[in-house]
Order: sequence, then C-alpha cells, then structure tokens
Amino acid sequence: MVLVLGGVRSGKSRFGQDLAHELGGNDLLFVATAESRDDEMALRIQRHQQDRPATWTTLEQPLGVGDAIAAMTNAPAVILLDCLTLLVSNILLKHHDDFSAAEAGVRAEVASLVAAVQHHSATLVVVSGEVGMGVVPESSLGRQFRDLLGWANQALARHASATYLMVAGLAVNVTQIASTVEQAASSVAFRSAKVAPEDAAFAERKATIASTQAEGPNR
Amino acid sequence: MVLVLGGVRSGKSRFGQDLAHELGGNDLLFVATAESRDDEMALRIQRHQQDRPATWTTLEQPLGVGDAIAAMTNAPAVILLDCLTLLVSNILLKHHDDFSAAEAGVRAEVASLVAAVQHHSATLVVVSGEVGMGVVPESSLGRQFRDLLGWANQALARHASATYLMVAGLAVNVTQIASTVEQAASSVAFRSAKVAPEDAAFAERKATIASTQAEGPNR
Amino acid sequence: MVLVLGGVRSGKSRFGQDLAHELGGNDLLFVATAESRDDEMALRIQRHQQDRPATWTTLEQPLGVGDAIAAMTNAPAVILLDCLTLLVSNILLKHHDDFSAAEAGVRAEVASLVAAVQHHSATLVVVSGEVGMGVVPESSLGRQFRDLLGWANQALARHASATYLMVAGLAVNVTQIASTVEQAASSVAFRSAKVAPEDAAFAERKATIASTQAEGPNR
Repeated sequence: MVLVLGGVRSGKSRFGQDLAHELGGNDLLFVATAESRDDEMALRIQRHQQDRPATWTTLEQPLGVGDAIAAMTNAPAVILLDCLTLLVSNILLKHHDDFSAAEAGVRAEVASLVAAVQHHSATLVVVSGEVGMGVVPESSLGRQFRDLLGWANQALARHASATYLMVAGLAVNVTQIASTVEQAASSVAFRSAKVAPEDAAFAERKATIASTQAEGPNR
Repeated sequence: MVLVLGGVRSGKSRFGQDLAHELGGNDLLFVATAESRDDEMALRIQRHQQDRPATWTTLEQPLGVGDAIAAMTNAPAVILLDCLTLLVSNILLKHHDDFSAAEAGVRAEVASLVAAVQHHSATLVVVSGEVGMGVVPESSLGRQFRDLLGWANQALARHASATYLMVAGLAVNVTQIASTVEQAASSVAFRSAKVAPEDAAFAERKATIASTQAEGPNR
Repeated sequence: MVLVLGGVRSGKSRFGQDLAHELGGNDLLFVATAESRDDEMALRIQRHQQDRPATWTTLEQPLGVGDAIAAMTNAPAVILLDCLTLLVSNILLKHHDDFSAAEAGVRAEVASLVAAVQHHSATLVVVSGEVGMGVVPESSLGRQFRDLLGWANQALARHASATYLMVAGLAVNVTQIASTVEQAASSVAFRSAKVAPEDAAFAERKATIASTQAEGPNR
C-alpha cells in the first residue's frame, strides 16, 4: 500500500494516478468516492474524470469501499482510491448525530480496506488530504472531520510501505526519512554526550539571550 | 528560480530575504505585492519594511509583476518577490465575479513572470504561502483562493531549481528529497519482490489485527 | 530540547510521550497545559490522561510553566510539555484585549522556559501544533493566535537540538535535513555555473511554453 497525502491543489491526485499507472498499466481499478452534491462538486468531479485514462475500470463507491473490493471476483493488480478524504467525510455525514458511530464506521472501513487489498494481493494507492495544519475550525463537524481523517491517515500510514507528502507538486517519501523513537532518543543522548555540560549550558544561554533580545513575536 | 513556501510565521520572508541578499548583495530588486487595505495590513507591511535593508530597490506592484519586470531597462541580478500569496489574492479580487477570468489571470501572471526573469537572466526568489492544509474554507472565495494559489505554487515549483518548505524557521529543500513517479514505483516493486507473498501477507494481517484492536479514531 | 510539531491527530502527543519515556524512563515530569472549558475539552483531556503511564509526575500548569519548573527543588531529568499550543492560547486569552501584552507574555514564557530547563540541566520535549498552513482565519483572535504560535515555534526551534514534523504518525527530523541560507545560495550558484547560459535559458523557455500550454489553474 502507498499513501499519498497533501493539501488542496498539491498535485496529490496527479501523483497518485501517475504512480498507479506506472505500477499497473491499464490493469487498474479506479475507486471514486466523490458524491456530487452541488454544481461546484460536479464540476470538480468532471474535471478529475477528464484527467483519467478512458481505459481504466471505475468503481463509484461513496461508502463501503473495502467490502465492495472484497466482493469482486477478479480485482486488478493495482487499485487507486481517490480520495480517502471524501470517504471519511461520507462516513461522518452518514452518522452526523453520533460521533462514536462515525468513529466505529471509519475504523471498520480502514480494516475492511486493508483486508480486501490483502485478500486480492493487490497494490493499493490511497490519495488523502492533509487537513489538520490550520487553526481549529469553528464548526463541531469540521473538528470531528479532521480528527477522523487524521486518525485514518495514521492508520493507513502504518500499513503503507511508503507515505508521500505532496508539496507544490513534489512528492516527499516521508516513510524513508522518518525517525523511530529510538533513533530520536539516541540522537538526543549523543548530542548531550558530545559537549561538556558547562560549555553547552554557557553557549546555549548566550544564544538564548541574544535571540530573545533580537526577536519579538511580531518581528 | 527558487520558491520558498511556508505557513504563516514560518520564517519564509526572513529566509527569502537572507537568501536573496546572499545571492545578490545589494544588486537586488524587492517586489512588494501587498496593498494596504486596513490598519492590520498596514502594520504588517510597515514591520516587513523595517526588516529590509534600506539600500534595496523596491517595486510596489500589486498586479502585473511580470510585465513590470520585463519593462525594466536594467534589472538587478537578483529579484525577490514577497509574496505570491498576495499577488494571487489581488488577481482573484480583481475578477471576484468571474473565476475563469481569475484562473486565466493567474496563468498569465505566472507565464509573464517566468518569461521576464529569463529575459533578464535574473535569479528570482519567490516567497509564497502554503494555505491548503486546513479544512475546507466556508466561503467560496476562500476555496477559490486556495485552488488558485496551490496551482500557482505547483507551476512555479516546476520552474524552480529548488523549492523550500519552511517549518518553524527551518528550510527543507523539497526538490532535493522529492521522488519521481518512476522512483516511487520501483520502490514499491522492490519491496514486493523482497518478501515471499505468503509471509508478507501473514505479517501484515497480524499487524492489522493488532493495530486496529489497539487503536480507535480518538485514542 | 526537542520540539515535536504537527497538525491535529498527526501523532505528535504519542511521539512526544514515547520519546520522553525512552529518554527518562519514569524519571519524568509531565506538564499539562490544558484547561477544561467545556465537555469536548474535558473528554479530550481525559483520553490523553488515560494514554499516559500512571507513574509519571504531572504538573497542571495553564500559565507560567517556566517559572513553575524553575521553582522546583528537584526537577526530573526529562520534562515533557504537552502542549505549547494551549500554553500560547492561554496567554492570548488572558490578554485578549491587548495584543502587545500577549506578544510580551509569549516572549517571556519562552525565555523563562528555556532558562528553567537549563537551570535544571533537564531535557525538555515540547509538543506543539502546526496551525499556519490553512487560509486566513476569519476571526481576529484566530489570526493573532497563529501569529503568536508560529513565532513561539520558531523561537523554540532555534533552541532545539532537533525539531520533528509529524506527518500521519511519522516523525521527520527537520533540523537534520534543513538547509542554511549559505547552503541554499551555493546550491543556486552551483546550478547556474553547471550549464552554459544560452542552453539553460533555451531549455527552460521550452519547458515553460510546454507546461503553460498543457496546464491551467484548474486542471
């Protein structure tokens, strides 16, 4: 499994499509999760469709993606899910009056998705949004949504052989450069051991004074 | 061209200025795109001005930056544009009732900017905002803005020799660590080949069960 | 000092806790900054408490964290502050009618925090939010908050031996891969020198024309 994360217009759909095509050629299932609720959404869906090769098999599945894939008799070698953002949003809206049910729904969807892909020995490319790096949304639904999607992204990243973060169309393999807790801890310990305590404290205090004098919150 | 991306107060203006100064010394044109619409903005502009060396040539250009640079008889070797965020915002506000015109305006601005810099054989440093990693904005204008800016960032990143992402004042060269689609695909294929299918499936299923039992969306 | 930054549900608290535990075992002070203002917050706090080992010493300190740590007679070797986001929010709310006072408050808190940790020769792990990568918040308080937190994150990152950015539960050591201004400048100069000016300009112009023709803002 490969997870492709990114903000809006970061090139994540494009990278996910190109990667899936490179991996599977035309032996590819495209799973679309978008439901057209208004004109703006309809236009966005239409534009995404025009970007995809006409030869791809498409499954329009706003909910129950894992079960639908598991039920296929012959799944393609590569499955592209674009995007998890809308799948989680659809689950939340279905249970909008019961957050615990929405949580359970997202958990079940992730588990069935992972199981279905393993059942078919398929390679899954999941495109998803990074939506948690702004200020707290004013609506309760907005806060619930970013909690659920953040959890789902983490859960899939644990199963992914690679998680990419898209930045202005560039794909960074985060899995490859990520540190484990043990690596992070040994790096701290190593630094502490390198310098004698007195010198380190003195140097750091000097830097503190210099920088807190030079810099205020709004400069 | 170098693109410096970052969130609010991520140190992107500071890094862009320091980089431009290191590259061009005082042979530098500073292009300011901010229009002072209210007191809050006026204060922000004033503080940014105080941060810049007084010796720099400044061009205040809320729209038509590419054409203005192209029209110069002697452009400096280094041009610093701070920031693209406001340039795109100004274009959108000019065409606020016609999104297609705003799209065309952003596309034309990016093309003329790239052409002008090449015409003068100048090095351009562009500071821009990363604004697409929060939840969907409630206003239609907000959604249009992040679509346009995300596209503009991608377009400039394609022309940039380096795109930096600022994180708490630290500059990560994303171009340097980015993967191509081919690299991403061969990394997936390589992983699949390394482990026998049965073992991989078994190990992953075990991990799935363990992690979905241990973790819920809100734990 | 280690700074752990991330969006909502990015795994930052988990990574901060695991790192602090790996470094300090049970010789650890946990500083909680959350104030329970409503049921949603109370539930979130309770869930975080259940995630922490019962053996940890906990200091509940919504304001004045640095002074409280400095006043301890025997501070543990490792201090975990979770999270800076709420500490900055508490300072802003205390001075909600006076932004300059809030700025001064955040500046003083950062300075006293750094001094207290150096006084005890302790290792501090700070968990904080990345909240500046969305569109401009509609409320003035929201805009002030992300300015203050962005500044505080930068200030602590300057003192940290490592700053991690969490992406879907994966921890990227940003300090390790960050470029200095000098490195960024020499990389630009090196690129320019490698190719003859005519060839580079020609190749780039060709690419420009191709890509601006192929791509529009919404494709």
